[in-house]
Amino acid sequence: MTDSRKPVFLVIGAGGGIGGNCAMRFAAGGYRAVCARRSDEEALQKLVTTIEAAGGSATGTLLNAAEDGAIEELVARVERDIGPIHAALYNLGAQIGNRSLENTPHRIFELGWRLGTFGVFRLAHALFPAMVKRGQGTLLVTSATAAMRGNAGQHSHAAAMGGRRMLCQTLNAEFAPQGIHVAHVVIDGPVDSPPLRKLLGDRWDGFAQAKGEGGIIDPAVLAETYWHLAHQPKSCWTHEIDVRPHSDVPWWNDNPAPEIDAR
Amino acid sequence: MTDSRKPVFLVIGAGGGIGGNCAMRFAAGGYRAVCARRSDEEALQKLVTTIEAAGGSATGTLLNAAEDGAIEELVARVERDIGPIHAALYNLGAQIGNRSLENTPHRIFELGWRLGTFGVFRLAHALFPAMVKRGQGTLLVTSATAAMRGNAGQHSHAAAMGGRRMLCQTLNAEFAPQGIHVAHVVIDGPVDSPPLRKLLGDRWDGFAQAKGEGGIIDPAVLAETYWHLAHQPKSCWTHEIDVRPHSDVPWWNDNPAPEIDAR
Amino acid sequence: MTDSRKPVFLVIGAGGGIGGNCAMRFAAGGYRAVCARRSDEEALQKLVTTIEAAGGSATGTLLNAAEDGAIEELVARVERDIGPIHAALYNLGAQIGNRSLENTPHRIFELGWRLGTFGVFRLAHALFPAMVKRGQGTLLVTSATAAMRGNAGQHSHAAAMGGRRMLCQTLNAEFAPQGIHVAHVVIDGPVDSPPLRKLLGDRWDGFAQAKGEGGIIDPAVLAETYWHLAHQPKSCWTHEIDVRPHSDVPWWNDNPAPEIDAR
Amino acid sequence: MTDSRKPVFLVIGAGGGIGGNCAMRFAAGGYRAVCARRSDEEALQKLVTTIEAAGGSATGTLLNAAEDGAIEELVARVERDIGPIHAALYNLGAQIGNRSLENTPHRIFELGWRLGTFGVFRLAHALFPAMVKRGQGTLLVTSATAAMRGNAGQHSHAAAMGGRRMLCQTLNAEFAPQGIHVAHVVIDGPVDSPPLRKLLGDRWDGFAQAKGEGGIIDPAVLAETYWHLAHQPKSCWTHEIDVRPHSDVPWWNDNPAPEIDAR
Repeated sequence: MTDSRKPVFLVIGAGGGIGGNCAMRFAAGGYRAVCARRSDEEALQKLVTTIEAAGGSATGTLLNAAEDGAIEELVARVERDIGPIHAALYNLGAQIGNRSLENTPHRIFELGWRLGTFGVFRLAHALFPAMVKRGQGTLLVTSATAAMRGNAGQHSHAAAMGGRRMLCQTLNAEFAPQGIHVAHVVIDGPVDSPPLRKLLGDRWDGFAQAKGEGGIIDPAVLAETYWHLAHQPKSCWTHEIDVRPHSDVPWWNDNPAPEIDAR
Repeated sequence: MTDSRKPVFLVIGAGGGIGGNCAMRFAAGGYRAVCARRSDEEALQKLVTTIEAAGGSATGTLLNAAEDGAIEELVARVERDIGPIHAALYNLGAQIGNRSLENTPHRIFELGWRLGTFGVFRLAHALFPAMVKRGQGTLLVTSATAAMRGNAGQHSHAAAMGGRRMLCQTLNAEFAPQGIHVAHVVIDGPVDSPPLRKLLGDRWDGFAQAKGEGGIIDPAVLAETYWHLAHQPKSCWTHEIDVRPHSDVPWWNDNPAPEIDAR
Repeated sequence: MTDSRKPVFLVIGAGGGIGGNCAMRFAAGGYRAVCARRSDEEALQKLVTTIEAAGGSATGTLLNAAEDGAIEELVARVERDIGPIHAALYNLGAQIGNRSLENTPHRIFELGWRLGTFGVFRLAHALFPAMVKRGQGTLLVTSATAAMRGNAGQHSHAAAMGGRRMLCQTLNAEFAPQGIHVAHVVIDGPVDSPPLRKLLGDRWDGFAQAKGEGGIIDPAVLAETYWHLAHQPKSCWTHEIDVRPHSDVPWWNDNPAPEIDAR
Repeated sequence: MTDSRKPVFLVIGAGGGIGGNCAMRFAAGGYRAVCARRSDEEALQKLVTTIEAAGGSATGTLLNAAEDGAIEELVARVERDIGPIHAALYNLGAQIGNRSLENTPHRIFELGWRLGTFGVFRLAHALFPAMVKRGQGTLLVTSATAAMRGNAGQHSHAAAMGGRRMLCQTLNAEFAPQGIHVAHVVIDGPVDSPPLRKLLGDRWDGFAQAKGEGGIIDPAVLAETYWHLAHQPKSCWTHEIDVRPHSDVPWWNDNPAPEIDAR
């Protein structure tokens, strides 16, 4: 049931990591969470149930963000049927693991852009006019190390994230003066999430042990930082922030540091 | 009187802007604030009284941070007489207004470095060994636009802040794995503070009016972001964050945007 | 006629600005220039004739780089019919002038990516396998201010160029150790070129006069820097370089500098 | 003997690496090289002799750049006795190897600043007024990876180089419009030079072999890039450029790339 007195928090990419945890955090803080993910209706329903069990409001929907018109339709439907979207989180990644150029077909490169860059553009395009009218709104964008530097094997991912970062800056330049807060969150370390656990499979335990306590980003903890960003008053807005485990080497450092650093 | 059960929050540069407001915020959150500033004992005492009137704990001390041994003596004294420093804020600027190269004497350039870069180094040098032993600690460093790019008239300030930023990265690289959180906070807009009001003098009212509501950083609001950073759990540390009023143009944008942007 | 003893320099985007001038410079230096541009066969033929009149070798071809298979077919044809491509220049822009988000339709945003990011990927994908076999090759990529920061009205352009920059870094990371030199050239000022003259129309004379002597990038002069980069020996490769007129404000500076710089 | 018809190229830090090779290159190109280094009069004399044997003009002088007044006196003396300085190269480093914070005494940190940042300021302060009067001049500044990011053990070096980079940007902002070209050259790899050979001692051969052909920057080759920068016409100035061996990992990449890149 819709509680029309609550502001809406729309999450595109509401899986078991950052997206789902932000949905829970914002619902706990008084938002109605609208959770969209591509597949796994069961997990989606479980997220909604968990939020409701904790006394929050939530709705779930499946969404293929790469499909023409899908994001636009969702935004229109939420604004019409549920309520004004006060804050949104774009949380779809475009990470496909390390692939050499030869093993990165055209369609993979294009899909990276479609989810990594174009989706952010489409969300802003659909959502911002209403936010501008209301003079208020927040767009949180989960981003990645690859937005800051390209590395071997990251052709699709880095091109998509580099485009995402510059796009967030253009959106900020046009819309911050109109009251819309755009924040680009650079996640510079591994997040404890179903996709990473799946990617690692049997290697997860060894990975987690090697990382040690606090060595993997806890998405429930990270959600507090998203919450903080979304509620900075207008005189103190952050556009870009980085986050990593204390024990992780930042993207701008070598790992390991060279024994002889003659540079 | 010392409440030895409270962790200490040491502020170097505890004036009426960011430093003083962070002292108030951290004291409200359960720290004992140790407030140091170069001069104006009356304002210092007033800050301590304000904190205590609100139920918090605070101590004030005058400090010439540019003087040999002064920072070192303060850290030693606090650790010995008041308690372990759990968090510190280095909040001294090196801004001297716009000056051409010709009008920037050697001693001004050196003073910029002494307060802007060397002071951070000295604080870390004096403070981190004890933090490493305790396996815990936080160093918040207020920084400026000039840490990100040099501009005309900013010879002293930009060189000092550029050094500060790279120093914060070296400190983070060595000490984050040892449990010390170093955060470099890029203040990319004007802060409502006594120095700015003094600098502007009669022009303050016009400046504030032109900026409009939320157009100048409110240091009491900003202190919430400092508090958030200082309390991120170990799996989710931020090293760099920017903050500006929603209506301000970020440092990487032109103001105004060029009518013909052929770049 | 093909002079098979000459190495090939392939220019995608061989108009009257950077592309055409680089074709002339490399032809003067002993390459066979293969010049591709989207339209204006007459101008293309004139470029070839000019190069040949100066004693150089050149071929011209029309190319719609946004079309599926077009870049791939061109690379294959040149390698087969003309000779091994030793150096290539990707010189297509994605600049469409300042447009608000509302006035940036999806297809414009996508076209920006197709020319600005995807085209570089496709060229590298088609060209690098042969270069890797030969253990030698150069890819020069003309880029723009928008690769470094997004600004209002630049949604399509900045997203495309930000993707381009990160892509160049991924290509460099994988291929520099294999002997392929990728250089990302940040053009941070106006270039004296037919598109800019056309964009400005009647305003060109006033613009040029306001800029003054040396105030607009001369593409014939700039071609010397491209030539230099393409011929750096393997021990001294540049990946990124910026270029602007001496009188232009760099992208990281305000124009004008704020009277009161309190940041 | 002074050949007053030749423009002067002043090198501060004219050792056997970049400085000496630039002196040779500029002398070969028609400048009178004025070579300054801290010690080793014999090596200095040998450099002058080598340049003269090749038909060039050169003068050598010992200089302790950290000493008050030394740079200023040198500039005044050269301008008075030898001729107008058309181009200068500041080539003093501040690299002291990897040292933990604990093992970086205050005086080492200060010396890093004195040579790494303050020396550039002092050179510009002494030199630019005459260049401004002549409406022409070039200042090349050799810089390092540490100007772009701090890393463990680099407290002194990174703070000094970060200050240097921001200072170069302030100098550029004020003086480029007045005809002075300031270029910040980021050397992001090892240079084959006496200090590096001395640092490595017996390990040099193994290091060179591991790096392979073209794996260490050849300063004679690099000098061509300095020459190119110094002679870019006013419409096409570069402010920042990076250089590294083709086989070296750029500062923004991990070495090695992580097997699992989940960022």
